[in-house]
Amino acid sequence: MTIIYLDNAATTSLDKEVLDAMLPYMTTSFGNPSSVYSYGRETRLAVETARKTVAKHLNVKPGEIFFTSGGTESNNTAISASLRDLGCTHIITSPIEHHAVLHTVEHYCDGNAITHSLVKLLPNGHVDLKDLEAQLATIGKKCLVSLMHANNEIGNLLSINAVSALCRKYDAVFHSDCVQTVGHYPIDLQRIDIDFISASGHKFHGPKGAGILYVNSKLQIKPFIYGGGQERNMRAGTENVYGIVGFAKALDAAMTHYEKESAYIKELKAYMIGQLQEAIPLVTFNGDYNGSCLYTVLSASFPKTDRSEMLLFNLDINGICVSGGSACSSGASQGSHVIAALNNSADTVPVRFSFSKYNTKEEVDYTIEKLKELM
Amino acid sequence: MTIIYLDNAATTSLDKEVLDAMLPYMTTSFGNPSSVYSYGRETRLAVETARKTVAKHLNVKPGEIFFTSGGTESNNTAISASLRDLGCTHIITSPIEHHAVLHTVEHYCDGNAITHSLVKLLPNGHVDLKDLEAQLATIGKKCLVSLMHANNEIGNLLSINAVSALCRKYDAVFHSDCVQTVGHYPIDLQRIDIDFISASGHKFHGPKGAGILYVNSKLQIKPFIYGGGQERNMRAGTENVYGIVGFAKALDAAMTHYEKESAYIKELKAYMIGQLQEAIPLVTFNGDYNGSCLYTVLSASFPKTDRSEMLLFNLDINGICVSGGSACSSGASQGSHVIAALNNSADTVPVRFSFSKYNTKEEVDYTIEKLKELM
Repeated sequence: MTIIYLDNAATTSLDKEVLDAMLPYMTTSFGNPSSVYSYGRETRLAVETARKTVAKHLNVKPGEIFFTSGGTESNNTAISASLRDLGCTHIITSPIEHHAVLHTVEHYCDGNAITHSLVKLLPNGHVDLKDLEAQLATIGKKCLVSLMHANNEIGNLLSINAVSALCRKYDAVFHSDCVQTVGHYPIDLQRIDIDFISASGHKFHGPKGAGILYVNSKLQIKPFIYGGGQERNMRAGTENVYGIVGFAKALDAAMTHYEKESAYIKELKAYMIGQLQEAIPLVTFNGDYNGSCLYTVLSASFPKTDRSEMLLFNLDINGICVSGGSACSSGASQGSHVIAALNNSADTVPVRFSFSKYNTKEEVDYTIEKLKELM
Repeated sequence: MTIIYLDNAATTSLDKEVLDAMLPYMTTSFGNPSSVYSYGRETRLAVETARKTVAKHLNVKPGEIFFTSGGTESNNTAISASLRDLGCTHIITSPIEHHAVLHTVEHYCDGNAITHSLVKLLPNGHVDLKDLEAQLATIGKKCLVSLMHANNEIGNLLSINAVSALCRKYDAVFHSDCVQTVGHYPIDLQRIDIDFISASGHKFHGPKGAGILYVNSKLQIKPFIYGGGQERNMRAGTENVYGIVGFAKALDAAMTHYEKESAYIKELKAYMIGQLQEAIPLVTFNGDYNGSCLYTVLSASFPKTDRSEMLLFNLDINGICVSGGSACSSGASQGSHVIAALNNSADTVPVRFSFSKYNTKEEVDYTIEKLKELM
């Protein structure tokens, strides 16, 4: 059976050129980067070259890029460091953040010394900036604001510069989970005044188990993982050299082909919206789907019927991979906290379609045909 | 120039059969294991099969194995969880632990609510069990004992069952950094009563960036990294599927060929001891090198001369990769805290030779020849 993979917000395939860049470090160049002999120097050079590549694309200093095991570790590091090292005692976040932020916030907040609050959302799922400002103005504690750059389920893009301006105005630390945008948009951190951003390689055709945390060089934070002197004493442990090399290669490839690939995927999403509306008139879309939204994500809601409740399951049987929410609940019966926060009707079945450069109109057509059959 | 790699305690080459086991998950089977559709199920199955393989070799339940980004993260997790979740307020460790333990202990100990002490060492570098018992008997606080199974610089093997018995007698939590022994020795955790062990794939021809933490099922601990429900809510973040598959494959291969390979490496180490003593009569060896010691590690000390101070550097020029201490200080001028703790003479130059199944007697011969020239 042909597989139609429309869950690229959960993970993407590893690009051939990325794998090719990684393979030398999985075969001949295996030295420990912390060694100084020839084998070690090769891998050290690979890690530092990767850091420079990533820094170039984000327009930051290489010393501001820290390699981690992924976006979740990066989020955990930024949040814990803000509380422990930067004096934050209150966290403002949103009800539609990824669990990597929400659960971390819940863990650190005791409701006493460390508290948190959720910013209100507008009906289209965007953060209510007026509410954010009102909270920052009245909370009376040093705040960490952690708001994702793009929502992984509905695709809404944050007005990141507006949030940054508010954070600076009220002296708050600003962290953004950029897992869905790094590798999908040019991100120039000289134009976004921010303290931390997190990213993950496997979301843009790079390897799993490899992420970064950008830490603004103005900040002084302690490590999240203690041990050896790797990552300039900030993240101990022998470096995942292949993962690091793959992350940088994937980012470089994504940015090199950004114009062409993003235009292609954007058109694919628009095509699917049109075809869905034609084929299934009762379909609705979640979030600001044709406005300030990821070109890679389309969250649709289908009318609930006896058959559509089994929609994800039946799509899978037909070789179509989509998810009901984030990867953590892909295909699962457990509801999405994001869709719930948007107060969408319980009488609909939400399905996230997320695209990559490898998807085609033919795949969209086939998916629409199957959806018609399965509704 | 031919490279002679004698730094296998720092890292090992990735075995071809391990890479072959990883590659399907870097190409066709790329789904997110948290998804339930076909792609996801393949990778979920791969992760859970890997967990079963690891559990089988350690003779524990699969639910007691947690995949991490490496030994350092595992050590950090065990230590922080013991303090936060298990009521430990004092840590007993040794002055010759890896920095992944020592620096983590230093971070968490404030000298007040959380304290630590170092166990005394015998002249041969072994832990003084009488001192350990005296400390456990008098400290008056719930203790975590963190002692490595084998020292990464001198190779000394811990009397792990004797330490376990003392920990049980005094109700202490027992963690052992087994990074140098898992994959090098059969380890049956039904015969070692222990709470946590850490291991790292790249020390036994597996991948970098992949480790495990064994957590005794009697314990209830909180996650180290918060977010999605991966690793049964204990270690959030999309799984490094290739790393996990590679870890299990490497462990399986190592245990399958253990008898033959360990005998071979043991003979190589003995051969090098003999040849060194013959060629450089003033050489001495650190630790219990021909007693309870890793068969993979030989720590030698050479008389200090103007030339021998440059020994690591000159060996590198001749294509011989060795280290002065742990990987974090391989070839660096920075002294080893392990050798310093053993009170060895400052008039010697310590060099760690560490072997794998890929080393040969010819390589040892060549190394000895070069050492004679370079002394």
